[in-house]
Amino acid sequence: MIEEKVKTERLEQQIRFIVEIDKLKSVYRRTYLINERRNENTAEHSWHLAMTAMLLAEYSNEAVDVLKVLKMALIHDIVEIDAGDTFVYDLQALSDKAERERAAADRLFRLLPDDQGQEFRRLWEEFESRESPEARFAAALDRFVPQLHNYYTSGGSWRVHGITHDRVVAKNVTMREGAARLWDWTIKLLDDAVRKGFLAKSS
Amino acid sequence: MIEEKVKTERLEQQIRFIVEIDKLKSVYRRTYLINERRNENTAEHSWHLAMTAMLLAEYSNEAVDVLKVLKMALIHDIVEIDAGDTFVYDLQALSDKAERERAAADRLFRLLPDDQGQEFRRLWEEFESRESPEARFAAALDRFVPQLHNYYTSGGSWRVHGITHDRVVAKNVTMREGAARLWDWTIKLLDDAVRKGFLAKSS
Repeated sequence: MIEEKVKTERLEQQIRFIVEIDKLKSVYRRTYLINERRNENTAEHSWHLAMTAMLLAEYSNEAVDVLKVLKMALIHDIVEIDAGDTFVYDLQALSDKAERERAAADRLFRLLPDDQGQEFRRLWEEFESRESPEARFAAALDRFVPQLHNYYTSGGSWRVHGITHDRVVAKNVTMREGAARLWDWTIKLLDDAVRKGFLAKSS
Repeated sequence: MIEEKVKTERLEQQIRFIVEIDKLKSVYRRTYLINERRNENTAEHSWHLAMTAMLLAEYSNEAVDVLKVLKMALIHDIVEIDAGDTFVYDLQALSDKAERERAAADRLFRLLPDDQGQEFRRLWEEFESRESPEARFAAALDRFVPQLHNYYTSGGSWRVHGITHDRVVAKNVTMREGAARLWDWTIKLLDDAVRKGFLAKSS
């Protein structure tokens, strides 16, 4: 009887978390969808990132455990449920981002049974600190995908926020640590974006 | 030189696919978000399904390869880019669903390099035919998550479309083949939904 009760409580904790994270679908990012004129939300971004990881695993600088990369991609932004999305070019918002996100992780991951809460916390911290091949690769893709969005919306959030070529390069060159070949490809994409008038030249 | 060109073409095919699938974020389903009054799209649903698979793998009837389940969850509805979402209670739309989705799979997976196109096609067909433990489990979760959405929106699409308890049971009892324990839990959820007036009694 007691064992049955413990099992039921475990499932109920898991389901509460599944219901809670539906909120990630209402966290909107600065990026625009490619085929619809609206901002992307973080849940669909996380799906796109996981798909990209599945497809481009061969370009990781180091050998990676793809299951771990997918798990990281799926949960890497869950803290935004409480902390909101922080625009990568917003220096002021970036200053307290780590603190806001840590508080969010404390609350969210504690909704889960201990073993799973600890696993998620570890994966998220590993991603944030780029301390493993999987984290470096996932982080590189997390920088890569928004470049596609901006390019294929003829400038998208670059234009809306007046971001110049030098700032894009400075912010995304860390891609090289996880996926050098994709960074080389991105440099060409950014040059082409400047040529086409999607991205302003460095000031 | 030739080898370099082949490699570049491979990456360009992969990137074209990554850009193409952004369209899944504009395929809207009948389910409503729990915390915002709008329909859910298929990309964010796929993320939620993959998260659920990560969290509830222990409830699969049979042992599963979690990586394979996650891949299936991520791609299981990609064909909706061309075929649209088919409401599970719409018998007329269901009649040509398989045909529409096969045509979509033909077009979409052929955008990829052959090896990856074939892998995706196999995973999707396996999911559709429920022919492996991973497919039965992923399909069970794909039925499970919308029940949560309907319950936690006080009836959501059940009410809008006049769906009764017997139809919900008939449509979702296949969950038992992949995750019997989650089906048992769902039966209780549905009973409670009837008690609370979220779901109409069987007619």
